[in-house]
This record gives sequence, structure tokens and C-alpha cells, in this order.
Amino acid sequence: MCRWLAYSGTPVLLEDLLYKPTHSLIDQSLHSRLGVETTNGDGFGVGWFGEADTPALFKSVEPAWNDRNLRELAGHVRSGLVFAHIRASTGTAVQQTNCHPFRHGRWLWMHNGSITRFQDVKRELMLAVDPSLYPNVDGSTDSETFFFLALTLGLEDDPPAAVERAVGVIERVGHDNGIDHPIQMTVATSDGHRLWGFRYSSEGKSRSLFYSTAVDTLREQYPDNPMFHELSDETRIVVSEPLGDLAGAWNEVPESSYGVIQEGEDELHPFTPRA
Amino acid sequence: MCRWLAYSGTPVLLEDLLYKPTHSLIDQSLHSRLGVETTNGDGFGVGWFGEADTPALFKSVEPAWNDRNLRELAGHVRSGLVFAHIRASTGTAVQQTNCHPFRHGRWLWMHNGSITRFQDVKRELMLAVDPSLYPNVDGSTDSETFFFLALTLGLEDDPPAAVERAVGVIERVGHDNGIDHPIQMTVATSDGHRLWGFRYSSEGKSRSLFYSTAVDTLREQYPDNPMFHELSDETRIVVSEPLGDLAGAWNEVPESSYGVIQEGEDELHPFTPRA
Amino acid sequence: MCRWLAYSGTPVLLEDLLYKPTHSLIDQSLHSRLGVETTNGDGFGVGWFGEADTPALFKSVEPAWNDRNLRELAGHVRSGLVFAHIRASTGTAVQQTNCHPFRHGRWLWMHNGSITRFQDVKRELMLAVDPSLYPNVDGSTDSETFFFLALTLGLEDDPPAAVERAVGVIERVGHDNGIDHPIQMTVATSDGHRLWGFRYSSEGKSRSLFYSTAVDTLREQYPDNPMFHELSDETRIVVSEPLGDLAGAWNEVPESSYGVIQEGEDELHPFTPRA
Amino acid sequence: MCRWLAYSGTPVLLEDLLYKPTHSLIDQSLHSRLGVETTNGDGFGVGWFGEADTPALFKSVEPAWNDRNLRELAGHVRSGLVFAHIRASTGTAVQQTNCHPFRHGRWLWMHNGSITRFQDVKRELMLAVDPSLYPNVDGSTDSETFFFLALTLGLEDDPPAAVERAVGVIERVGHDNGIDHPIQMTVATSDGHRLWGFRYSSEGKSRSLFYSTAVDTLREQYPDNPMFHELSDETRIVVSEPLGDLAGAWNEVPESSYGVIQEGEDELHPFTPRA
Repeated sequence: MCRWLAYSGTPVLLEDLLYKPTHSLIDQSLHSRLGVETTNGDGFGVGWFGEADTPALFKSVEPAWNDRNLRELAGHVRSGLVFAHIRASTGTAVQQTNCHPFRHGRWLWMHNGSITRFQDVKRELMLAVDPSLYPNVDGSTDSETFFFLALTLGLEDDPPAAVERAVGVIERVGHDNGIDHPIQMTVATSDGHRLWGFRYSSEGKSRSLFYSTAVDTLREQYPDNPMFHELSDETRIVVSEPLGDLAGAWNEVPESSYGVIQEGEDELHPFTPRA
Repeated sequence: MCRWLAYSGTPVLLEDLLYKPTHSLIDQSLHSRLGVETTNGDGFGVGWFGEADTPALFKSVEPAWNDRNLRELAGHVRSGLVFAHIRASTGTAVQQTNCHPFRHGRWLWMHNGSITRFQDVKRELMLAVDPSLYPNVDGSTDSETFFFLALTLGLEDDPPAAVERAVGVIERVGHDNGIDHPIQMTVATSDGHRLWGFRYSSEGKSRSLFYSTAVDTLREQYPDNPMFHELSDETRIVVSEPLGDLAGAWNEVPESSYGVIQEGEDELHPFTPRA
Repeated sequence: MCRWLAYSGTPVLLEDLLYKPTHSLIDQSLHSRLGVETTNGDGFGVGWFGEADTPALFKSVEPAWNDRNLRELAGHVRSGLVFAHIRASTGTAVQQTNCHPFRHGRWLWMHNGSITRFQDVKRELMLAVDPSLYPNVDGSTDSETFFFLALTLGLEDDPPAAVERAVGVIERVGHDNGIDHPIQMTVATSDGHRLWGFRYSSEGKSRSLFYSTAVDTLREQYPDNPMFHELSDETRIVVSEPLGDLAGAWNEVPESSYGVIQEGEDELHPFTPRA
Repeated sequence: MCRWLAYSGTPVLLEDLLYKPTHSLIDQSLHSRLGVETTNGDGFGVGWFGEADTPALFKSVEPAWNDRNLRELAGHVRSGLVFAHIRASTGTAVQQTNCHPFRHGRWLWMHNGSITRFQDVKRELMLAVDPSLYPNVDGSTDSETFFFLALTLGLEDDPPAAVERAVGVIERVGHDNGIDHPIQMTVATSDGHRLWGFRYSSEGKSRSLFYSTAVDTLREQYPDNPMFHELSDETRIVVSEPLGDLAGAWNEVPESSYGVIQEGEDELHPFTPRA
């Protein structure tokens, strides 16, 4: 399994997100508390939106905790929409093309969890990917296949519906192959404007996912904390596990639901796979 | 494009094959004379048969010329059947799963050349791979897809027929997609007992391929060369380009043909794709 | 800190040493029980004696647990004298030249522990290295400097005396620099014939080190265990932590002592740094 | 040997410097025209000044021509002071700590050339490095030792004098060791405000070095070229070999001289090692 972080809000240096929190994502690469594995050392990736039309990616097969290039970039890159992912391989090769986040055009995607017995259903799922998208599948993970299924089923037009349809396909193919619980997932996706976070699993016991409390609430609760004065009210973090122990700062995303981080009011809705 | 070497005969240290010849494969990684590219620096791989049932593989994404692990292994591993390949990527990612040789059970496979406009025909070719083999495709190259096509079409029973059928499929799919010359190839494959080398291209202008002169002939011609006294009469090398300038030592594999290196008389036959 | 294993005895496949034990070294790379860190993911190295005059090395900066090349080699390389080391960096760069074991001529060396505040004493220690050896220091670790100090002080003639002298130098230089406890160490070294294992620390609380019980004793104790019938009486393993839970199989090396594994009777002696 | 590029002027995307020119540095990694080696595939590095106090570094041991992370960064990072270097190792290990540019505080440094028989003089040169700087030497190259010698001898106060003194030391130590021509060099260094480029060799036949013609002159000469309208008059590039064939755009730095790129008038002076 893996751990990930998605940030949307006031532009910050990546190091403020990735290194400075008490229980930062980099710390989680060695000492995850809530993950299936405590070590997430099979590569990592960071994606961020900057001045170009499409987001930038930086990926490495080395553990995040000791990667000097990541440390350098984190100290020099500032962005208002950041994805970061540390990987614990569930079997597929440790190579950059298997590191999250994945990208297609303006879209980023990252996933924690797995498609059960992926090798047995991969061919059928890959066949369900639009032939025009098929050549863009670069690596060999279940997560990337899932992304391209969602793209095939309308991710760019209606992300929640597309993900619900993709999970519907994965569950149908899984059940056809005698798999009881075909998918386990937390997913983040974004086009650079809005950010969607999903939490779901076929068995109803999903990997952990948390979102940060609204900044204006935190500012009221912690009037002396300077950080909350620097961040806009629109700022929000979604993470596999809390980045620290600040009371009231982190809220669990409910089972089978998804959230939308966007200008104005954010939203939280139930998630229901579509046949 | 790439360069490769296949050896069958008296067990030798890998360094005698890979480093010691004047124009060795490692030298070709920096200074290929006959290749499309002079530099073959996008990773490499070595496969060899030893005491285990299946051959060993060592692969790296770094250029062969400066890889310390390869230098070490070459000085300590001895084998009588060796495949070595240096890669110049034609577009797919530089990662270990894309390095040759590829392996399935006892079979090794390596390829120089390409399937033309592979991204456009990949899906159709992958569909032609047997569903039971499909999950074993680990990387993203045309060469590995070609290998699994050949396995699907009987490589383990009749290698020449299987490769002729696989090329037949590739050419049909290519022509269906408006591709004039669908394939360019030199291929080596082996099960640890026999070794097959193929040279073919749809346009009839194939990448270079050479085989070494029979050792007894060389021994007669160069009675003072000690090397030819250490090697058995069965010893033979097949290479993308000659490893040195010894007159009479290297023979071009003819266009559209394949050879078989085996106990007893080796063979050379015409190669004709099968519809 | 790190974990290591040294094996001397009946030639075995590396995988029997590195992968098959319940709590194997590869398992320890993710889940060390007795180490300062549970994760040892900052590269690894294996050294083994084979047919060449000098031992072979294979090193990688990737975590051992997922390295495909190590898995391959382990299944095909057989040796009667093997060193293996998994690294948890204490600050110096994760690069092959910093991976253990280190080699000089026929000698291998690996170390768990550290020279306290190494950056502050490095220059003085490097100055104590023989000028003719100095250019062979390839990496930047305390462990390699320690090795070259020991070589300078006679490792090839009298290993225990040389290591006692090297530790004497390190402690003197440390104390001169106001360091209370200048060294923490378990060390293995070998010339391919004999194997020495050391356990010592300036503060008298050394990292764990164990050696396996004599095979004839184990054979008597476990008459039905086939493994003990395949191994010669001379076979012995020295490890940072036991490879399994077999009662009576593992014995702690006492504080401030060293052992010699050799033909005939093995030895255990006190270790005393020499001024 | 190596190739390098130093840029100072109007902030540009790195890809405009590294990929877009006809004979770009990335192209030179495969096809250098004027270098000692045509291939510079033993790692690379990029340094740039941005919003932080100290410059950022990105280094990799893979060849630059196929590195996906470099391609990504180049498309998203904009800077007005950029160093880029592609390496062809002259013997020392291919590892990130040996990739240029090197950094100390605000200072960047990169080098093409070599200190002759470096292994024989390394100890003496390292002894000449200030003890307080010594622990910061991270890798094993002659180029980094040269940098720390220059820092020891006043680089941060008077770069030309410090480099002249450092070369004086290298030549003296070389001559003491019976080396006729102790150094071959082109060097770039910068503190983020000014940029110095040096060309010198003991034998008086130095590696090539070029600087771009003043932008106002180029604008007059090529009134229709839009690029010259986007760049400020202060913009200047110093490179190992010209990035294209535009007549009048590139000028050779004379033998034994150095230039200063700075606000206002740039300068060109003779370079004379100091005893």
C-alpha cells in the first residue's frame, strides 16, 4: 500500500508540505502509523501545477526519506496545487513509470490500495480502456489502469461519475473472476482547478483518509498559530494519515464517500459504484 | 536500436566475452560501428545459464560502459550459454523491465530493431498474446510483445515456425494500419540447449548480424592462437557486429534467414513470415 | 545503523542465506528487531569468494527487499564465504561507493555502528591512513575510513591487532576532540580463508552480534532437520541478529570480544583497543 | 571530459536553454562535436538561482538525453542564472556526489578538464583544503577538490585571484610529483550575482570555451529574430561549445583568460596562476 497527500490553496514551498509537519509524508515513508505497511520505500512521486499548461512531475525509484533531489526541489518549488505519493509496491516493478501521480493532459491521479488479483483481471480491464488512450499507459500498475479506465469513462467531464463507473467496471470484472472484494482505494485527482478525493472499498473497510479543517475555523481555535494567518480560507489538505497531532485539525473522510475541494464551498458526497 | 551478443560453447568468464575482445560489446556501447546509433547507453542486460533450471538475468538502466556491478559479475560468472544486450531506446522508458534479454521459464529472448509505429499497433498485438501469458508481460517494449507473441504461437515447440508466425501477425497488423515496413529485426532465442538467431526486415534491408567461423577452421587457420585451442569445436558466437578484425573469423548472416547453434552440425535456413 | 551477515562453510546458494531463513537479512531490511532503526533501506552489498583470486562484489543503492538483480544473483551464485550488508545511512550519501562490504585485494570488510561525530574527526583519521592506500578510499563513510586505518595498521598480517590499533587511534582522536564515546562497532573481515568478527563500543553497550552454534551440536540436538546434515562441521554464521527462533542455534558474541572462524577449532577472545 | 553551459540574464525556462537550441547541451550529451569524447553520458547536473537564498541543484547518474525528470523540470523551472553540466567520467565513480555543479553556500562551481594523475596528488591537495571546509567535500572528483581549494584560497572574496592561487597550488604539487602538465580546465563559478568563466591549461592547449555575443549586437544583426527581442541586453551564455551555427553569435574565450558576466559592462582578462 502507499501514502499520499494532496494540497490545494495558498502557494507554498513543497518542503512546508512534505518535510516540516511533525508526522510529514517523508516521515511516513519510514514510519507510517495507519498504513498496512510501516515502510513506504518503493519510490515516490510529486506532481504540481505551476506556470505551464500541464502539471510537472518528479518521480524516483529511491525511498523518499533520503532522496537529495526531492529535498532540493522541495526547497525551491512553490505551488498552490500539489500531489505527493510514497509507494509500497504490492508486487509490480519499482520503476518510475509505476510511481504516482500519473498524468494525462492537465489531469493528475494517485491511488492508495489495490485491485485484487490484478494480474488475473488486467487483460480484461486494459481491453476496457479506450483504444485511443491505450498507448499512453506507460507502466504496469493497477493504479494506472484504473486511471485510464476513469479517463475512458469521462473523468475529464464528470470526475465523480467517471470514478463511480470505473469502479463499477472493476467490481463487475472482479466478480466475474470470482473475486469477493475487487477494489480497495483512496484516490485523488485534479485538473489544476478542483481537487477530488475518494474513499471506498468493496468490502466497506477502506484505507484511511483525512481532510484538514477549514482554515478560518482553525484560525479561530488557534489564534496564536501564525501558520493559519498565512493560509487563505480556501486552503485544504487531503491525506492518508494526519500530518500531526493538532486537536481538531483533521477529519476522517467517511466510508464510501468523496469530497470536492474548489473555489467557494467544498463538498462531501456519498460514493456509489455504477454498473 | 541496440547491439547484442549470443554465445554457446565452452564455459567462459563473462569478461572474456564482454570486455576483452578489441571491439567488445561494452566498447560498442560507446562506439558502435554498424549500428543506427553509435551510442547504446539506455541500459543493458545479461542472461546466462548456470546450475539452476532457469537462466539468470542481470539488468541495469545505466550505460554498460561504466557499470561496476557488470564488471564485477563478468569477472566471476562462468557460463556456456550467454546472452548480452545493450540498449538504445527507440522511445519507450529506460527501466529494467524494458532491458533485454527477456525470460519466460527456460527461454531467453533478445531483439535489435523495432516494430514500426509500435504505439499504434500495440493494443492489437497485445490482444493476440495468449491470455494466460498476458500477465507476464512486465515492460512496455515492442521487443517483449514480440517475444510473447512468439511464445503464444509455439516458440517452445518449434522456434523458427513460431517466429515466422509472430512476424506474420506483426506484418498483417502493420499493413492493416497502413504501415509499409512493419518490422525490422535481429533476434536471438534459446532454451539453454539450442540457440536460434534470426535476421529479417519487411523492407529487406535488415540490421547487421554475424556468426563466428567454426572453431576447427579457425584453429587450422591460426595454429598459434591459444584461444582457439581452449574452445571446443561446438563453440559459436552470434553478434550484431564483429568483435574484432580477425580475417576469416566473422560471417554475415544472410538477409531473411536464421541459424541454429546446436550439438553436432549447426544449420542456416531461409526465414519466411507465415500468414 | 545497519545489519550484516557473514557465512563461512559448505558452499551454498546465496538465496539460502539471504532469503530463506524465517527472519532473513532481506526480511531485516524491512523489519529489523534488534537494530537502532527498523528499516535498513539505504542500499546494500554482497561480497563472495569464488573462482577468482579476489572476492566479487555486488552493490546497489536500492532497498534490498525489492531488488530484482539481488534476487536473481542469489538464485544462481554459490559460495562458501559470503558477506552481506544492508545499510541504514547515518548521514553520508546513499551511493554504491558507500555500500559495504568494502574490498582491498583479497580482503572484505563490513561494519555496523559509527564513528561518533565523524565529520569532525574525518580529516585527522584520513591523515592517519597510509599515503599509498589513501587513493583507494572511494566513498565517504566512517566505515571505509576505519577499514583503511586497519589496513594501514597491519590488517593483512594480524587482523585482531590491526583492528585494536585502529580503534585505539579512533578513540584517541575522538577524545582529543572532546568525544566521550568515539566508536560503536560490530565488524566482519576476511581474506577468504579465515573470518574475524568483532563486537565493541567505547561506552560498553555494543550493537548486537550473534554466531551460530557448531553444526555437530545442532545435528545432535535436531537429528531430523535435514539442513544440518548438508552442512559441514566447519560451517558457521555470524549475524547482527538471529535469522530465526531455533532454540540453541544462536549465541551472543560477548561485549568487547572477537571471534575467529577457521579450519579446525574456532576461537573467541577479548578485544582491547591499543593506544 | 565534460560539457557545460552557464547562463545569466532574462529569466527563461530551462528547456529553452537545455533542449531547444539546435546543438543543445542535451544533444551534446550524445553528439559532442568539440569534446574529447563524443558521448557525455556519465550523469549530469543542473543548478539554478531562484527564490531561496542558496541555489537549487538537481543531479542524476543517468545520461541526460533520456532523463524524464530533467525534461519535466526543464519545462517548469524558470531562472535568470543557470548552470548545467553533462559528465564524461575520467575514472571516478558515477554517483550524484560526483556530478557538477558543486555548491557551497551561495556558490556554484563546475569544471571541464582534469587534474593530471589526480589519484597521485589527491592527498596533498586535500591537505591544502581548509580543515573547516574539509568535511563538506562530499564526492571523490578532482573537480570538487579544486573547488574547495579555491574556496580555501578566497573564492568568496576575489574569485579570479582565488582560482589563480588554486591553480598555482595544483601546478606546484603536480610538478613536485613529476607531472608536466598538471591541469586542464574550463571552469564556471557564480554567487548568483556575477558569473566567472575561466579557460586555462598547463600545456597551453585548453578545452574549448565560448561566450555569446552581446544581445544588442545580435538584435541589430538579426532584426527579425524574435528571441533577441525577448532577452535583456545583460543576457549572456558561456558554453563548452556553440549551441548552434548562427554566424556571429559565438566567440571563443582566448587561451589563459577569464571573463566576468555582471551588471553593466562584462570583462575579459588574462589568467595567470599564482605561486
